[in-house]
Amino acid sequence: MPYYYKLTLEYDGTHYHGFQKQPHHTTIQEQIENALFRLTQETVKIIGAGRTDAGVHAMGQVVNFKLDKTMEHATLLHGLNALLPDDIAVKKVASVHADFHARYGARRKTYRYFIHNSAIRSPWKEKIAWQCRSPLNIAKMRQAAKRLIGIHDFSSFCATDNDAKNHLVHFLKIAISKKEDGIQITLTANRFLRYMVRNIVGLLVEIGRGKKEVNIGRILDGKNRTLAGMTAPPQGLFLMEVRY
Amino acid sequence: MPYYYKLTLEYDGTHYHGFQKQPHHTTIQEQIENALFRLTQETVKIIGAGRTDAGVHAMGQVVNFKLDKTMEHATLLHGLNALLPDDIAVKKVASVHADFHARYGARRKTYRYFIHNSAIRSPWKEKIAWQCRSPLNIAKMRQAAKRLIGIHDFSSFCATDNDAKNHLVHFLKIAISKKEDGIQITLTANRFLRYMVRNIVGLLVEIGRGKKEVNIGRILDGKNRTLAGMTAPPQGLFLMEVRY
Repeated sequence: MPYYYKLTLEYDGTHYHGFQKQPHHTTIQEQIENALFRLTQETVKIIGAGRTDAGVHAMGQVVNFKLDKTMEHATLLHGLNALLPDDIAVKKVASVHADFHARYGARRKTYRYFIHNSAIRSPWKEKIAWQCRSPLNIAKMRQAAKRLIGIHDFSSFCATDNDAKNHLVHFLKIAISKKEDGIQITLTANRFLRYMVRNIVGLLVEIGRGKKEVNIGRILDGKNRTLAGMTAPPQGLFLMEVRY
Repeated sequence: MPYYYKLTLEYDGTHYHGFQKQPHHTTIQEQIENALFRLTQETVKIIGAGRTDAGVHAMGQVVNFKLDKTMEHATLLHGLNALLPDDIAVKKVASVHADFHARYGARRKTYRYFIHNSAIRSPWKEKIAWQCRSPLNIAKMRQAAKRLIGIHDFSSFCATDNDAKNHLVHFLKIAISKKEDGIQITLTANRFLRYMVRNIVGLLVEIGRGKKEVNIGRILDGKNRTLAGMTAPPQGLFLMEVRY
């Protein structure tokens, strides 16, 4: 009888080619599966809640897997942390039901994006924020962002090479707050399409710069990626939390 | 007639052998002097307010130097930031009087030390905090730290190979505050002796662990390094501010 587990992970995605396993590139999935093999001597396949892109980080990624032999939670936690590289850590271990699926079972996810809003770069922000040199008007960004809330077709904010069957998203929350030398944008939805957060942030930054009068309602209605503008770079993005 | 300048620097000290220039090792001073040479074509010697050790970081290091030709502040700021590696940045440029000396002119300095107080490591804290696995009693640490305030001989908290003529320090402030998953200790004094912050933090952590009944007054009076216990590692330490 197999045993089913869930891990909550934190990682600095800078040096990885994203979450999902692929040939010729090092990924988060590969590192976790290698560490699990070394710890358990079982060949394990993990399922991740979010397939974070290259350079994207996580504070609360969730993965699930099964083992043929049972293992103490503390042994998994400390054993994996001893085997994993410094830029990946297991924060929590839990047992789950056989039908738990980290991706399909997720009810909502929260992502956070950091913008370093300064003309001068910072050694502490290079890897974890997008540096926007010109001042951003937060009031304008907040006003525009409100229009995203609700159930909409997010085709205009989705990578054109995505594999989603439909692009309907229940967008639950967006909070834009001023930090010491930047802006933090926190987004919650029932699901996120490929590049969706980065495309939303890219548009909000154009709005904040005041260069463009933007009607988000019309962009959503257009259902066309070319309407919404640039994609923000990956290093400012964090997968914060997945709820089941 | 030479022109005199002051820079305020931020750096991630992880990959450097400290501030001060030395043979066979890369240092912060060397990087700044190289960038100044490339920008101005002058061979410049800089003087730093604090000679931070290998692995120690800065949010507000101050350096001064002189140039034979004048240069716009904006040119120095953006030129140096374009030439310096990602882990060093110039935050501010100012003109100063000929007699300004970043080290001897400093009236007070502030350092900050971060402790990541958790049994589980974090990819985000490895380079910027000391991980202490056992719970720390902040009330005990605060109570003990009070005794440092005032003018004392800090021989017991100073590296034995230091080159200071005397060990009298006017210790002005210490604040110990609880952060999300750790503790932040902020210390202000008219000057700091070699390893002084790291030796104070090392002792405060031993006190916080509750393993040792410590009388800081007696340790100061003893004027002997062997009385005060361990040295905290460098990666949690930041030079925050220098006042003139």
